[in-house]
Amino acid sequence: MRYLTTLLVILLYCTCASAQSADNGDPLTFSFLTEEENTFVRSELRRLTLRQKAGQMTQVAVDLVFEGPTYVLTVPPELSEEKIDRVIGQLEIGSLLNHPSRTYPTPAEYHDYIAELQAKAMETTGVPLLYGQDAIHGVNYVKGATLYAQPINVAATFNTELATELASLTAYEMKSASIPWNFSPAMDVGRQPVWPRNWESFGEDVYVNQRFGLAMLQGYQGNSVGDRTSVAACLKHFTGYGAPASGRDRTPVYLPERQLKEYYLPQFAAAIDSGALSIMVNSGEINGVPTHVNRELLTDVLRGELGFEGLLVSDWQDVRYLYERHKVAENLKEAVKMSIDAGLDMSMTAVTTEFPEMVVELVQEGELSMGRIDTSVARILAVKVALGLYEQRVWDPADFPEFGGEQFARKALQSAEESIVLLKNDGLPLPVGQEQRLLVVGPTADNMRSLNGGWTYGWQGTEADDYLGDYNTIREALEKEFPNRVDYVAGATFDSLGNVEGAVAAADNADLIVVCLGELSYTEVPGNINTLLLPKAQRDLFFALEATGKPIVLVMAGGRPRLMTELSRRSKAVLFAGYPGPRGGDALAGILAGRVNPSARLPLTYPRYTNAIAFYDHKATEALSGNFNPLFEFGYGLSFTEFEYSNLELSSRVLNPNDTLTVNLRVTNQGQRAGKHSILLYTSDQVASITPSARRLRDFIKIHLEPGEYRDVTFELTAADLAFVGLDNEWVTEAGTFSVMVGNLSEDFDYEE
Amino acid sequence: MRYLTTLLVILLYCTCASAQSADNGDPLTFSFLTEEENTFVRSELRRLTLRQKAGQMTQVAVDLVFEGPTYVLTVPPELSEEKIDRVIGQLEIGSLLNHPSRTYPTPAEYHDYIAELQAKAMETTGVPLLYGQDAIHGVNYVKGATLYAQPINVAATFNTELATELASLTAYEMKSASIPWNFSPAMDVGRQPVWPRNWESFGEDVYVNQRFGLAMLQGYQGNSVGDRTSVAACLKHFTGYGAPASGRDRTPVYLPERQLKEYYLPQFAAAIDSGALSIMVNSGEINGVPTHVNRELLTDVLRGELGFEGLLVSDWQDVRYLYERHKVAENLKEAVKMSIDAGLDMSMTAVTTEFPEMVVELVQEGELSMGRIDTSVARILAVKVALGLYEQRVWDPADFPEFGGEQFARKALQSAEESIVLLKNDGLPLPVGQEQRLLVVGPTADNMRSLNGGWTYGWQGTEADDYLGDYNTIREALEKEFPNRVDYVAGATFDSLGNVEGAVAAADNADLIVVCLGELSYTEVPGNINTLLLPKAQRDLFFALEATGKPIVLVMAGGRPRLMTELSRRSKAVLFAGYPGPRGGDALAGILAGRVNPSARLPLTYPRYTNAIAFYDHKATEALSGNFNPLFEFGYGLSFTEFEYSNLELSSRVLNPNDTLTVNLRVTNQGQRAGKHSILLYTSDQVASITPSARRLRDFIKIHLEPGEYRDVTFELTAADLAFVGLDNEWVTEAGTFSVMVGNLSEDFDYEE
Repeated sequence: MRYLTTLLVILLYCTCASAQSADNGDPLTFSFLTEEENTFVRSELRRLTLRQKAGQMTQVAVDLVFEGPTYVLTVPPELSEEKIDRVIGQLEIGSLLNHPSRTYPTPAEYHDYIAELQAKAMETTGVPLLYGQDAIHGVNYVKGATLYAQPINVAATFNTELATELASLTAYEMKSASIPWNFSPAMDVGRQPVWPRNWESFGEDVYVNQRFGLAMLQGYQGNSVGDRTSVAACLKHFTGYGAPASGRDRTPVYLPERQLKEYYLPQFAAAIDSGALSIMVNSGEINGVPTHVNRELLTDVLRGELGFEGLLVSDWQDVRYLYERHKVAENLKEAVKMSIDAGLDMSMTAVTTEFPEMVVELVQEGELSMGRIDTSVARILAVKVALGLYEQRVWDPADFPEFGGEQFARKALQSAEESIVLLKNDGLPLPVGQEQRLLVVGPTADNMRSLNGGWTYGWQGTEADDYLGDYNTIREALEKEFPNRVDYVAGATFDSLGNVEGAVAAADNADLIVVCLGELSYTEVPGNINTLLLPKAQRDLFFALEATGKPIVLVMAGGRPRLMTELSRRSKAVLFAGYPGPRGGDALAGILAGRVNPSARLPLTYPRYTNAIAFYDHKATEALSGNFNPLFEFGYGLSFTEFEYSNLELSSRVLNPNDTLTVNLRVTNQGQRAGKHSILLYTSDQVASITPSARRLRDFIKIHLEPGEYRDVTFELTAADLAFVGLDNEWVTEAGTFSVMVGNLSEDFDYEE
Repeated sequence: MRYLTTLLVILLYCTCASAQSADNGDPLTFSFLTEEENTFVRSELRRLTLRQKAGQMTQVAVDLVFEGPTYVLTVPPELSEEKIDRVIGQLEIGSLLNHPSRTYPTPAEYHDYIAELQAKAMETTGVPLLYGQDAIHGVNYVKGATLYAQPINVAATFNTELATELASLTAYEMKSASIPWNFSPAMDVGRQPVWPRNWESFGEDVYVNQRFGLAMLQGYQGNSVGDRTSVAACLKHFTGYGAPASGRDRTPVYLPERQLKEYYLPQFAAAIDSGALSIMVNSGEINGVPTHVNRELLTDVLRGELGFEGLLVSDWQDVRYLYERHKVAENLKEAVKMSIDAGLDMSMTAVTTEFPEMVVELVQEGELSMGRIDTSVARILAVKVALGLYEQRVWDPADFPEFGGEQFARKALQSAEESIVLLKNDGLPLPVGQEQRLLVVGPTADNMRSLNGGWTYGWQGTEADDYLGDYNTIREALEKEFPNRVDYVAGATFDSLGNVEGAVAAADNADLIVVCLGELSYTEVPGNINTLLLPKAQRDLFFALEATGKPIVLVMAGGRPRLMTELSRRSKAVLFAGYPGPRGGDALAGILAGRVNPSARLPLTYPRYTNAIAFYDHKATEALSGNFNPLFEFGYGLSFTEFEYSNLELSSRVLNPNDTLTVNLRVTNQGQRAGKHSILLYTSDQVASITPSARRLRDFIKIHLEPGEYRDVTFELTAADLAFVGLDNEWVTEAGTFSVMVGNLSEDFDYEE
């Protein structure tokens, strides 16, 4: 690869003021540390042995320090002195992740065991441990912590302030459990609807991923990452993870340089520029090169061009997989060397420990230089220093009195309410009328897994119903919302029919049937599927109920746009719930009752057919002959009130390179209900040297309007907003005519050089 | 793009002795012409006016010279003196294509009208016309000419000698109609199963496309393209056409440089090296660049690196589409300039005529140089000279006495017999027993369109049943094969149920039900589909018949692997007929009767599910957890006899760079019937710097064995056969261990540098 030789252009175009990217050329000096701190890091490098440095570069799951076999620790978890002696005492490993398998400790329990592990580390190497978790929608492995909507839902809110708040609250609750490092946000652009991690990203658009990635980064790291309520963020997954050709997780992606640069780098460039302290590598392979050995991407681009100074960590066992799965290394030792040569700082070896010993051997054999090791160890130490871990390694849960409190609960509910997308409301069956009786059916109606997805009390989210039993499922929330007006019959599991007759019979007594379909929880390889079609049992259940003639409200829960073409047509109302989190049932009840006015918009294109996949920013040829015909378009979402756009005005008909074009419009709530509303601004390039997309999202803002209220909204556009990666694979803004589109309004202007 | 800076390496690795690629650096001298001919071309350039040269660069459909509106000419066709005066007299256009719309003239009729057009051209410019057609499976627009199996079926024969014969016979029949230029072979690698032109290619593998492309090229151009029975071939479509991301025809393809070089150039490099005289440009766009303006690909790679000296023609109206569809040009004139700048020689303007006038204007305005025009015109003239058109422009049909004769008919039948793939024969329901009665049902059972596909008496093949009525449909052939033992009830059309009850009732009387499902004829945009699923009506028809309990023989006809997962499971026997041509019914009858022993193999991976698409040469990560699980694998195909492989031996355990490794094995017909059999040799690379494919096809040969007979087969492997496009995007063979796989046998060897 000769990727991205002048990515500085990206920085010019796509990022704001640079706090971190001023590379002084010295890999052992960090712009995010003080001079004194930098001096300290260098002194640590001199103090530590090779073996200790190799340990710093290693991260293992806490399974390796608790009693019991890996993945099936004792319950309750008990630290194993023998294992601690080996892992921290002898191997001197410097980083840990995850939770003691099969348990979800309280903050106090985390505090106690992390304190013991930290003490051992300090005693052995004098370097604090760096402890990380995937707290992707709240601290999902800490008992009693608050969980929010998953990222795809956060994107659907189009409310970046809310995203920052959620991340900030998550950081607070992480620190209450003495966990200072979060493997979040994921800014993968999901361009493969069957991919089982779409829902962990902010959808199909790079700009939406960038905006929400930055918003959550701000919430996690706060004003200073060393603050008591801040954690270090970890950007995932660098890069190009979200479009596997086969649709399966961790399988090959084919990305031309131009598309890689335009769709898979800007979000990372911006977040690096905003001070993200760590990044995790894409587990897949791009154009036949496993990312974990991709030196051009991990070093030339990430360090050289994006100016990333922080810590680059592998994903789960991925160094091992270089030879076990990808077959680019003859053995583990070669894989270790290749990944470090490529630029990796820390290997998430997870449940194996050969890595640090092989690093030592490779240095001793001259295969890796001490300088190379020092570079990585310095980055790791710099993050530990920035987090203040040398001063404080555990935090007293008592100092976090708001843990699991009301403020958190409110935000959890808000994240659900603002993220459930109303896609259809024909004849306005919603809100539910005063006297109407509801029949609730379907496999997603009465469980927590379908509201929360993976990374929720377990990697696959399998224990959500055990641990989130106090929260309301859709069924429970509806029963509370509409006392004595709700019947429930499951009717089917996810893939087999159950008591369909009972459900059909119960419909007699109902005015409205709420059919809850979709998916259970999953992530990564276990979430692979073969088809976007909904399992036949769910479709058959729907059709059996539809045959009763009673109006249907269809609720789709899950992490992917499973097809509902015919079902949607035959429903009076359709809601895409996604994974709204534990308060999803309450939010849905609020929407059905009309207490909550839906304001979400789809952050993805909802396909109509299995093999007609295209995205909102498709090229013109993809839309010929009506061929771009998704079931619901990106950005689509209804409200119970009506927002009218008017007075679209541009400050000029001409934009010059150093000018700003101001776009004004008025948005009026013409309906009878108050509501929030996201305004999405798109541009389209009429003619360009690279075939232009039909439209590209350039800005958005969310507002609240009372009935009859209006607000004048202003957006600004500059040359950078119109840029694309051109023929020579460099960013360019070309002179010509552009359209600005907001809602049903559109105006043209010329960009002139 | 900085594609392929040293494609010489490809030439070294992938092509044989070079007849044409020795670029002498002079664009006006052609290595395929004599010195005298080159001198003549240069003198013609001096003689012709700019206007005449612009006309040489233009190709229009014959609609523009016949009476009646475009696309709906009078029947019978009548030349229009007025139109001829304008198109050939005034615009001095030098090339024509297609047939008079709505009619398919006889050779004599073609002779007469082409003679008149040629006379007009000679009178006006003194330069003969170049007349072309898409005779992709025989001369499909000439009444009475012989049609053969379509390319996907030709690939399924794995019989390259047969391919050469078919192409040679096609050339003979083209020349009998005075048509010297064939837009064939297409060597697109079909990597998108819904793409509506998969069947026009030789399937999913680049090597298969290369082998069959070369075989047909040899048949078309013969030993000398100027021979009476030779025509000029046109390689299609340069390049990367076959993997549109959306699955729709003529939509964007995203191809990294590495994959473009490894999968989409070798077949063209080899065919150019074998003297292909013309190439047609891919109508799509690669990485956002419409191929018709891709100077790197059309000039730097095609001319500079592949050494192509011949004529590069656009596809239908594609210069116009640069601004109408792709939006890379402001207007037609800019599109004209861009395409010529990129390297186009001839624009298939089809039914419009602004092109030559705009070329004149662009030269007069200094936007295009006269030298650039001369380069293209020289190439066009060189092809006309090579074809001998200055000496002879029409051929007397009487000199082609074998037109439509017995030899041709035999090959048409052979192409069908060797290309229908037997995929399942559980419990050996086939061949049909002596006394068994058959019920034939289904929408592909009784029409010619489903046997012939597009480019068959009409672009979309819509008139096949009118013009091929003398040939047997599947139903007719079975009725003849099994007199008085066949009932027929259609039961359904392609997408709606018909007399299912009648079909089910008729099953009472049958021992075996032959269910014929699949597709009608189509190509290009009209052939776009939204799903690989077979229409519900066809599935329902199948299940209704299957419920009778009678054993089912499933026949799938059509151009794509429409899903049949459940249908195949419930059938006793399954045949993939593809588009076997007009003799497909007879061939199928022969197979069902046991007169013909099937010998075809799938040239594509038959998917099991809509959204689990991968190919035989997938990477290891795509096959983890049983995830590579197609319904039938590439290369799969059964016989009525049994072939046993034994004695696999390598000449050495080590291969060195300049050596040849000989692979020997014995193939024995262990069964009771004679049969043909293709032996496919694969290699796999154990470890490589680019993740290795599970296997790659490196050679194949087809043999015939009597019962009990054996044959010792020899293959040869060199370093070139093990090469791939490496980290630096150059071809490389890396030292290491390789496996050779033939059938169920495998041996390893080391490649050492």
